[in-house]
Amino acid sequence: MLDLTGIYPPICTPFNQDQSIAWDKLEQNMKKWNQEDLAGYLVQGSNGEYCYLTEEERIEMIRVVKSLSPDKLVLAGSGCESTMATIKMTNAMAEAGADAAMVITPCYFKNKMSPAALEQHFLAVADSSPIPVVLYSVPANTNIDIPVDLVARLAKHPNIIGIKDSGGDITKVGMLVHATAGSRFQVLAGSASFLLPALSVGAVGGVCALANVLPAKVCELQTLFNERKLEEAKSLQHRLIPPNSAVTKNLGVPGLKESLDWFGYYGGPCRKPLLPLTPQESQGLKEAFKSNGFL
Amino acid sequence: MLDLTGIYPPICTPFNQDQSIAWDKLEQNMKKWNQEDLAGYLVQGSNGEYCYLTEEERIEMIRVVKSLSPDKLVLAGSGCESTMATIKMTNAMAEAGADAAMVITPCYFKNKMSPAALEQHFLAVADSSPIPVVLYSVPANTNIDIPVDLVARLAKHPNIIGIKDSGGDITKVGMLVHATAGSRFQVLAGSASFLLPALSVGAVGGVCALANVLPAKVCELQTLFNERKLEEAKSLQHRLIPPNSAVTKNLGVPGLKESLDWFGYYGGPCRKPLLPLTPQESQGLKEAFKSNGFL
Amino acid sequence: MLDLTGIYPPICTPFNQDQSIAWDKLEQNMKKWNQEDLAGYLVQGSNGEYCYLTEEERIEMIRVVKSLSPDKLVLAGSGCESTMATIKMTNAMAEAGADAAMVITPCYFKNKMSPAALEQHFLAVADSSPIPVVLYSVPANTNIDIPVDLVARLAKHPNIIGIKDSGGDITKVGMLVHATAGSRFQVLAGSASFLLPALSVGAVGGVCALANVLPAKVCELQTLFNERKLEEAKSLQHRLIPPNSAVTKNLGVPGLKESLDWFGYYGGPCRKPLLPLTPQESQGLKEAFKSNGFL
Amino acid sequence: MLDLTGIYPPICTPFNQDQSIAWDKLEQNMKKWNQEDLAGYLVQGSNGEYCYLTEEERIEMIRVVKSLSPDKLVLAGSGCESTMATIKMTNAMAEAGADAAMVITPCYFKNKMSPAALEQHFLAVADSSPIPVVLYSVPANTNIDIPVDLVARLAKHPNIIGIKDSGGDITKVGMLVHATAGSRFQVLAGSASFLLPALSVGAVGGVCALANVLPAKVCELQTLFNERKLEEAKSLQHRLIPPNSAVTKNLGVPGLKESLDWFGYYGGPCRKPLLPLTPQESQGLKEAFKSNGFL
Repeated sequence: MLDLTGIYPPICTPFNQDQSIAWDKLEQNMKKWNQEDLAGYLVQGSNGEYCYLTEEERIEMIRVVKSLSPDKLVLAGSGCESTMATIKMTNAMAEAGADAAMVITPCYFKNKMSPAALEQHFLAVADSSPIPVVLYSVPANTNIDIPVDLVARLAKHPNIIGIKDSGGDITKVGMLVHATAGSRFQVLAGSASFLLPALSVGAVGGVCALANVLPAKVCELQTLFNERKLEEAKSLQHRLIPPNSAVTKNLGVPGLKESLDWFGYYGGPCRKPLLPLTPQESQGLKEAFKSNGFL
Repeated sequence: MLDLTGIYPPICTPFNQDQSIAWDKLEQNMKKWNQEDLAGYLVQGSNGEYCYLTEEERIEMIRVVKSLSPDKLVLAGSGCESTMATIKMTNAMAEAGADAAMVITPCYFKNKMSPAALEQHFLAVADSSPIPVVLYSVPANTNIDIPVDLVARLAKHPNIIGIKDSGGDITKVGMLVHATAGSRFQVLAGSASFLLPALSVGAVGGVCALANVLPAKVCELQTLFNERKLEEAKSLQHRLIPPNSAVTKNLGVPGLKESLDWFGYYGGPCRKPLLPLTPQESQGLKEAFKSNGFL
Repeated sequence: MLDLTGIYPPICTPFNQDQSIAWDKLEQNMKKWNQEDLAGYLVQGSNGEYCYLTEEERIEMIRVVKSLSPDKLVLAGSGCESTMATIKMTNAMAEAGADAAMVITPCYFKNKMSPAALEQHFLAVADSSPIPVVLYSVPANTNIDIPVDLVARLAKHPNIIGIKDSGGDITKVGMLVHATAGSRFQVLAGSASFLLPALSVGAVGGVCALANVLPAKVCELQTLFNERKLEEAKSLQHRLIPPNSAVTKNLGVPGLKESLDWFGYYGGPCRKPLLPLTPQESQGLKEAFKSNGFL
Repeated sequence: MLDLTGIYPPICTPFNQDQSIAWDKLEQNMKKWNQEDLAGYLVQGSNGEYCYLTEEERIEMIRVVKSLSPDKLVLAGSGCESTMATIKMTNAMAEAGADAAMVITPCYFKNKMSPAALEQHFLAVADSSPIPVVLYSVPANTNIDIPVDLVARLAKHPNIIGIKDSGGDITKVGMLVHATAGSRFQVLAGSASFLLPALSVGAVGGVCALANVLPAKVCELQTLFNERKLEEAKSLQHRLIPPNSAVTKNLGVPGLKESLDWFGYYGGPCRKPLLPLTPQESQGLKEAFKSNGFL
């Protein structure tokens, strides 16, 4: 069983000004991240702008990241809208070096994505995947929330080993851990904003956008919790919320990329239609880092 | 200026049991539809399961439909998540024979699809498209509603000629017609469920899922309105609502495909993760057609 | 059977600067409205700020309006959260002169307001009410939408004679007329923004906030439809949408009250916590009337 | 400054079969609760069905509860829709013995309850209240969420001492503590489902529906956290989630009342339109207690 314990940044895909992938900048970022205490990387979560990449780019990204970070876990976001495309992509990413596949809920036909439809989808992918599957629930983008009951059923599949839950419903995080106890299913918090509360109810780590820019700090929060330094953990959690909320809820990938530049990484532009921050947004974001002592 | 007046079914993409496209069945369906008084076809609206097609399939579908229906307008659903992919797809579909491109709102990063982001996207596509662009708003699937103010601004672009609005907010349909008066912008109702009310406030026609199975009846509704036979129009509108609501709101593409079979067309399976109807759903759908005199 | 055909303003409750009811201003407004071709009044719809009135004020409002307008129908908004309070209020308002009771969906425990709970509530009220009951669905305020199936069942009760539907879902308006055909159930549009489309699918009139300030124009729209002057009706409908949307969707009761002052009625302040318009909102509202030729 | 630390059940209002208040059963319940380690009671939270009580009943409930529990804090839910009614009710409840007023967001005109409107409302109430004010945010019923920025501003008022947040957004709970640090503002979790996570980010206690039926267990969770017995706390938190979710999210007050009967308290019927549980719901609820070792 793959041990998912730890912190994973859902890494940004760096683009040049002409919107092509900036492979050199990716290498530069990876080398810097590799020095941190991160468990690995999520390649092609939402923050990887995976929905803007071509099939070829998606697979190549996995190959390059794994080759640059052979000692880290590479979780590959392999989800597509159709089951057949997801299976094909999952296999291609496995071949490219992914350690596990993170499979998002299909979401275009949201009214038809019943528990039965999602169950069939995830089981078909898990059955045919050569690597373990991690479920990926991100209702802010998909409007689909995988129900706890369904997760409990899917957790019994030997090739489904965990879930990244980005919904922010801490009760659900607790229920997921409770409902899958006994299996070796692992729950990852989907955001640094509720990492400490999630750890307190049994999450094993987190996939945290903020770990792109503040990897050491996010890792430190888990360490403080493990060492039962609860007051320090609470204080650090508080400080992480404002910049994290800014780059996840309010400003999204353009905000995350702009802040990468402030911390010695390459951020660069997003693919369109994502717009760069306005000067006012940019200033507010900088303030969220500054007032909490990170800049 | 392309005249969009009339009724368009958003045609289903027929699949074989092995999930490949059933090109022979497509031809069979097109020949039957071609005999009707339809203005044309929307190829790759939501009901075309466009999100489950590969790039190659998407383009080939346009080529085949246009070649089978040279006298009908082919509106090609060319939207992708990124602006660059949408431009590329729009050009490829134009080359394949599309008469106009119907461009959906990108929606994955729904919180970032501000009016400014959408405006930039549609203008870039319209600027580079060799064929006219029709905006496509379908909040039930995308959770994005193009604001009236933005539509009014976009209507000034010479290559943006209309909108298909599937939101069902009849006040908005009226506002769209009012706000674009003076331009030659055309509004198409996005559903047979509110075709008559939409015509009453100035829509020029409709893209109606139900026109897949009942093309003559949907066309007749517009004719009755044009001839000011309001009582007969009202009565027909009433009869169309229950089966239309069943195939759009409740049962979706699987319901539409099952009903195609009842009316002499090929329906067949959907691509997964869409599930076929349960026997109970199937019976309810049949009842919606029967109790209104269509079966 | 009470005939509900026609237009009803949901009248505003006028307040003095000290937040007490301005009975003299009410009389002044009623005398002016009485000269119009209105079928009657809704007293204590949302625009009557009924939720801010005491029990005594609610009953007294009915008494005063009926005494000032003996020849008009007085529809009394008698809904409360509990069934027992609603029954008591309905009886008191009947005694005070109401011609019919308009009963809103209870909404505090929105997750528990199942069709069964609503059905029990409306039946209990209808059973014990000495005057006919009109259902009142206003999801923008209550987040509760009475399902069509339930309305069809309730329409069989001899004392439930109609519904005011403010949801703006024109498909539902059509379904309501269709599903209650055969009974003598009457559907009233809940807004001037979709009055023409609602008439086109069988509504018998409307309860329209805008009829507070432009009663003649709203009545004229129904007349034009009745006389089959569809082009003029469409044009008038278009002109009514912007000011109506402004006073309903965007600015609410404070906007409606400010515009009353512009048209020779008394508007005055709302009860708190409703805030007056900002200067910018006020200007935008005035523009919505001006640009459509009403000021 | 009133110290709010601890656990408060939002007590149910007991009714007789004829829907009148069962004062004798209230006394019986209070005596049993008084033996527990609870900090006090919330009288007329949502679970108190406050929206179904008359003005007189609301005030009398406070008087009776305080007289029966002189050594416990009585938090009085004094919110009404209008500011003037809330002020009047708050004063009456203070006179009846309330130690603090818990003031819900007005919510009928939800689109107009801007931060400015809410701010004016809470400040006016706090200015005129003889007892401290606790803000009360319960979006599941009101669809209004008090923004963090506004809470931070309100926390500066000397008579606004805390907030009960029932939204379940643990990030917001953390932000509230962070944003009001330095003042003596206190945050109470609004549900037992996220009590441990809330404590981990700085809440001082909770107002927990489940503390009606399992007061000792909910108090024990806070004790375990205080003693840094995190594994035991996690395990107890897990066990509390299923029954708590059942009585809050799914089944509501009727579920809470039915479970009161199982634990030696009087539950009894709700006021209508709330319906009793179906046999199936009842069985599911019992199972949620049983499978977690509470029955």
